[in-house]
This record gives sequence, structure tokens and C-alpha cells, in this order.
Amino acid sequence: MKAFDFLENKTQTLGKTMVLDKGLGLNEVDDLIATAGDYMTFAKFGWGTAATMDSDLIKAKTAKYDAAGIIPYPGGTLLEVSVAAGKYDDFLAEAKTLGFKGIEVSDGSTTIDAHTRGELIVKAKQAGFYVISEVGKKNPELDHELTPAERVKLMNEDLKNGSNYVIIEAREAGKNIGIYDANGNIVADELDALTPDGIDHIIFEAPLKGQQTALILKYGPQVNLGNIAHDEVTSVATLRRGLRADTVGKV
Amino acid sequence: MKAFDFLENKTQTLGKTMVLDKGLGLNEVDDLIATAGDYMTFAKFGWGTAATMDSDLIKAKTAKYDAAGIIPYPGGTLLEVSVAAGKYDDFLAEAKTLGFKGIEVSDGSTTIDAHTRGELIVKAKQAGFYVISEVGKKNPELDHELTPAERVKLMNEDLKNGSNYVIIEAREAGKNIGIYDANGNIVADELDALTPDGIDHIIFEAPLKGQQTALILKYGPQVNLGNIAHDEVTSVATLRRGLRADTVGKV
Amino acid sequence: MKAFDFLENKTQTLGKTMVLDKGLGLNEVDDLIATAGDYMTFAKFGWGTAATMDSDLIKAKTAKYDAAGIIPYPGGTLLEVSVAAGKYDDFLAEAKTLGFKGIEVSDGSTTIDAHTRGELIVKAKQAGFYVISEVGKKNPELDHELTPAERVKLMNEDLKNGSNYVIIEAREAGKNIGIYDANGNIVADELDALTPDGIDHIIFEAPLKGQQTALILKYGPQVNLGNIAHDEVTSVATLRRGLRADTVGKV
Repeated sequence: MKAFDFLENKTQTLGKTMVLDKGLGLNEVDDLIATAGDYMTFAKFGWGTAATMDSDLIKAKTAKYDAAGIIPYPGGTLLEVSVAAGKYDDFLAEAKTLGFKGIEVSDGSTTIDAHTRGELIVKAKQAGFYVISEVGKKNPELDHELTPAERVKLMNEDLKNGSNYVIIEAREAGKNIGIYDANGNIVADELDALTPDGIDHIIFEAPLKGQQTALILKYGPQVNLGNIAHDEVTSVATLRRGLRADTVGKV
Repeated sequence: MKAFDFLENKTQTLGKTMVLDKGLGLNEVDDLIATAGDYMTFAKFGWGTAATMDSDLIKAKTAKYDAAGIIPYPGGTLLEVSVAAGKYDDFLAEAKTLGFKGIEVSDGSTTIDAHTRGELIVKAKQAGFYVISEVGKKNPELDHELTPAERVKLMNEDLKNGSNYVIIEAREAGKNIGIYDANGNIVADELDALTPDGIDHIIFEAPLKGQQTALILKYGPQVNLGNIAHDEVTSVATLRRGLRADTVGKV
Repeated sequence: MKAFDFLENKTQTLGKTMVLDKGLGLNEVDDLIATAGDYMTFAKFGWGTAATMDSDLIKAKTAKYDAAGIIPYPGGTLLEVSVAAGKYDDFLAEAKTLGFKGIEVSDGSTTIDAHTRGELIVKAKQAGFYVISEVGKKNPELDHELTPAERVKLMNEDLKNGSNYVIIEAREAGKNIGIYDANGNIVADELDALTPDGIDHIIFEAPLKGQQTALILKYGPQVNLGNIAHDEVTSVATLRRGLRADTVGKV
């Protein structure tokens, strides 16, 4: 039972939370799951970090997340590097061997044409993975060239091809990219233009507290948030539940 | 025995340190106590974070802190939410059951009249808790409306009602609030106006290194500091002891 | 075997990485070594942090690093404080007892004349330590007074006296110091003026991702980087290996 159980609003629905694991060790993963596992949906092994560690360590990590009902998946950059090297089949096979349950399809670091992108999604689905695709470029200049209409079109195509969720890119830093300006504040017009069909299948990367707060106040605690630092998952849970000053009495 | 024992100044008195635990797991708590427990006085379970975790986990954490001579207490926001829900008695009973030894009384997120505030303090004392009260608003605009004279009056009333210490609010970020300007620098006039009766019963929230340094250089290593991030406790100890460049030869 | 082994470029040489340990506990050290030990060369116990902990804890930490092939050493500030107290011999003896394998010679916080500096290096070498010396002042105003020519002269003298590597100071924050401007960006002229003899014996302190990226893109993955935060070691490894967007396809 949760501590201070009498404060809980049992009717509240909390959105999905995707956590950025940028290289946690097993003690840290144990702590993360014990403290905040109930509030985590996905554990993303950020960009190519999974490829710097021993296979056995990665297997031990994915097993822990999976046992806690959290979907572990490797960052999209690793997929992109593999695709660029002509090794997508090897990538999917290795991801399966390592115990990953999801795949992120992105073209944030490289260029992948729409047809190939669709095939990558379909193939990952056929291999039995949960698929999350990401819209946006990691280079801010390239990212700014994408219009909201183009992003919406990409999102819809991805969902049609089988993506379970679409992520709006913001990187680890959350500034000057996607729906955020150079200070990390939300550009309201950009956000509204991205959500003509609602937010149910969107995960907003929101690494900064101000972003998390603004999205929760706009859409409610059910908004899906991503790129949450591992030591901020509990804080995000308190924001969703109205247990931090920024949202007290407002959710 | 401490390493490099021959460097220690045994005549030096070090102030109290209140550490912000914003959701640590048991491995992290073990590490924190082993590395820096000797320099910790209070462990604050920030804002409402205690209410997102299982009771058994909270109990295990409070037991570890207590065994190390550190006073664990839940953040003031949790008290405020409980008071707003008309459940202060439940709150105190639950805090006791969970092993908390201190209570923070604040009105940073909500409005609590002076009379009620006094009663909250008295009631917590009667229930056997160590009481720390906090002066300041978490919303910067509201916080700026508080004059130094009003803050001093509140502090004195709290101490008269039984608070063991009074905290000057700065939140986790330490900017544009309390004694700090938008860059996190100390506003000297504000600080001096707050301390007509000295600093013995004041804990200054000082999350940033520049703030910790400035307060130590102004008041000496015996100044009481709060909202220290868990991975900065050792750094603060070195600042107090003249073992970091910022204070070498100056304390 | 590493995960996603088929992506590894076996011909690539990776530079040395010096990691800032500013007070990690044993669980954290275990995690760090297990996840990123293969990419670490040095573990610096930052400034005087080693002197705030029990001897037995420091011994346990140095033993873990040493067993993993990583050279542990105490921060230069601790040496400076010891020298100022006339206790350099005690310092070296204690460092040996505690299991440190390296010594950092610096004058970032205090003033040490050139002759004495040379003697400190020689003495540490004679005592069997790996020696790293640091060029630069921790106070930005004093640091700016050092011309590139003076820095190069100091570096060459240190190497002649026996230093294995010379570090270019940037502190934990990496701004307005050494080769970095107030925003943490590299001052290209300053950097070029420092490297007339190449970069083989230089370790650049580079705590910020933009700095790590810029140095890797300029010099290649073999550049030596220092003051890497413990939770960024894996990220630095991905930057070196072209597994993070900033360097994908460029190294």
C-alpha cells in the first residue's frame, strides 16, 4: 500500500511515462523500480548507450524492467546506425536476444525515406516488438525545417504502419527543438498544430520540470511524457497527482 | 577515522545540513549515509514524494536515516495538501507510523492563516515531532509580496509556537525566490533584514554552490544550510572545511 | 562481449577518460565500473572530498577502481592544502596507505612557485605514483591572467619533471575558464595556442557535452577528456564511437 494512502485520488488516470536510462547500473535500476516503477511505462536505453556495455549486463537490465511490467527498448539512434550499416535484421535479432521488448524507429540523426521508414516499422512489428516511432531531427536547424503539417503527416503514417505511440523529439536537454523554444518553453501554436487528432497516441518528450508542468496543466495528468530523467520520475508522479507546488489544487 | 585526518581542524563547528531526498532508493540511501551521513542533520522527503511510494519502502528509509542520527521528515507540501483536505490528524498519525521524526509546517503552496499555522506547530510538537517551519511562497510572484519585516514576524511567531528551526524557502532550483535574485545570487539587503536576531535558528535553503559558498564566507562554517542535493552533501562539507577552492584558506 | 558487437569499429583508438568522483558510495562505484569501467582511465576524487570520509571507505573505493584497471587519485586541492600546511610528506604517505595510485599536482587554489612545483612532481614520482599535473587557476580572474605561452611553458616543465599527463583546468562547471568562454564554448585561438606539440600528453577537462563533442570532432575519438561526470561516462563513450547524434557518421 502507498504511504499517505488517504490522499490518493483513485479516480485519476495517469498517462504513460517514458524514462531515459542513459546507462544505469543494476543497483540504480533496482532503486528506480522500487521507488518509481509503478509510474513507468517505458525504459529507453538512450541513443547508442546499449552498445557500450556487456551483453550480460544489458540482459540483466532488460529482465529487471520486464519483470516490473516496464517495456525496455534501445534508443532510435542505435537503430539508425544499424540501418545505415545495412544491418537492420541483425539489429532486430540482437535486440530480441538482449531482452528488449520495444523498438524505436526514428530518423533524428540520419535520413531515412518515408517508404523505408514504413518498412522498418512493419518489420519490427512482425518480429513481435512493441513499436514507438519518433518524429523530429536532433539537429535543431534541420528540426526547424519540419512544418507542423509534415509532422502530423509523418505521425499518421507511422500509426497506420503499426506504431503504438509516436514521440515528439526534444532530446535530453529539451531546448530549441520540437515544440520548445530556446529557453525550453512550449510554443503554443506549434503544439496545437500537432494535435488535431488529440494526444492519446503521442508521447511528448519533456525533460524539464516546466515542460512537464505545462503539459500536465494543459492536458491533465493523463498526458504521456517522455525523456524523463531517471531521478525525476517520482517528481513527475507528484506533478501528475497534485503533490508538488506547481500543480497543487490544479489537477 | 577520517582519511587525511591530519588536515582536520578539530576546533571548527559545522552548521546543520538539511538534505533534499527527492525519491532515493535504498542503495542510494546506504551510499549517502556511508559517504556523508556524518555531515547530515535532516533528510527531507521533498514535497509530496513520500506519498508516491509503498509504506514499507518509506519505513525502511526512515529507519536507515534514524539509525544514522539523521532526522527524516516529509516535505511541507504534503502537510499542506493534508490540511487542505481536513486530514491533519491522519497526516500526523501516518507520519508517526512511517517512522518520520520531524514535521515541516509551511504554507508555500496554499494559504494558511496565522492562527491555524500556530496550531499546526503546537499539535506537531505535542505529537512528539521535531518541528521545522518554512517561511516563503513557492510561487515567486506571491513570494515577492512578503516583506522582510513580515518574514521576521512569521519566523518569531513560529519559534515562539515551538518550531526548532525556521527555513527560508528557495525551492529545488534556488532562483528568483526568498533571498535570491533571478540568477540565484544573494540579495544582500534582503538577507541582512532577515537576520536581526542572528542565524542560529535559521536554515537557509541554498541548492546552488555559489549560494552555499557565499553563506559560508559571510557567516562561517556554522551556518545552517538546506535543500542540499543528495550528491552535493560531500561538496558542502568540503566548502565548510576549506577543502574546495572557493573557500580554501578562508574558513 | 559487448552488446550490438557488430556495430563496433575495432580499428578505432579511444582516448583516456578521467572521471570526476565527487563522493560516490560503494554501490555507485560498483555500478559505474560495471557499466563504464572499460571506458575509464582515471578516477579523480574531486578536490578535498577524500578527506571527509572514513579511511576504510576510501580504501574500499580505491581497491575497486584499481582492480578494474582504473587509476584512483585525490584531487589537486587536497595536495595544495597539505603543501600549504607543510605536510606534503604526510600527504604522500597517507595517499599510499589509502590505496591511491596517482597524484595530481596543481596550484589552482594556492600559489606554488615553479621550483617547488617541480619538486612536488619529482617527489611524487619517486614515491611510486603516477603523476598528473594541472595547469590553470580555479579563480577565473586569476586564470585569465595566464597567457597561452605561459601555460605551454608550465606544461613542458611539468612533463620534463616527470608528469605523465598535463590537465587543462575547467573545474566542475566548465565555464569562463581555461579554453572555455562564459557560455562554455571553446575559444579556438586559445586551444590552438596550447597545442603546438600535439595533444598526446594533454587531458582537456570537458564537463559539458558540447565541449566533449567539439573536442572529439576536432581531434578525433583519441582525444583525452577529463572531469567527466560519473553519469556521463557512457555518453562520452557513445560520442567517441559515433553512437550519439552529435557524432554519428563523423568519427
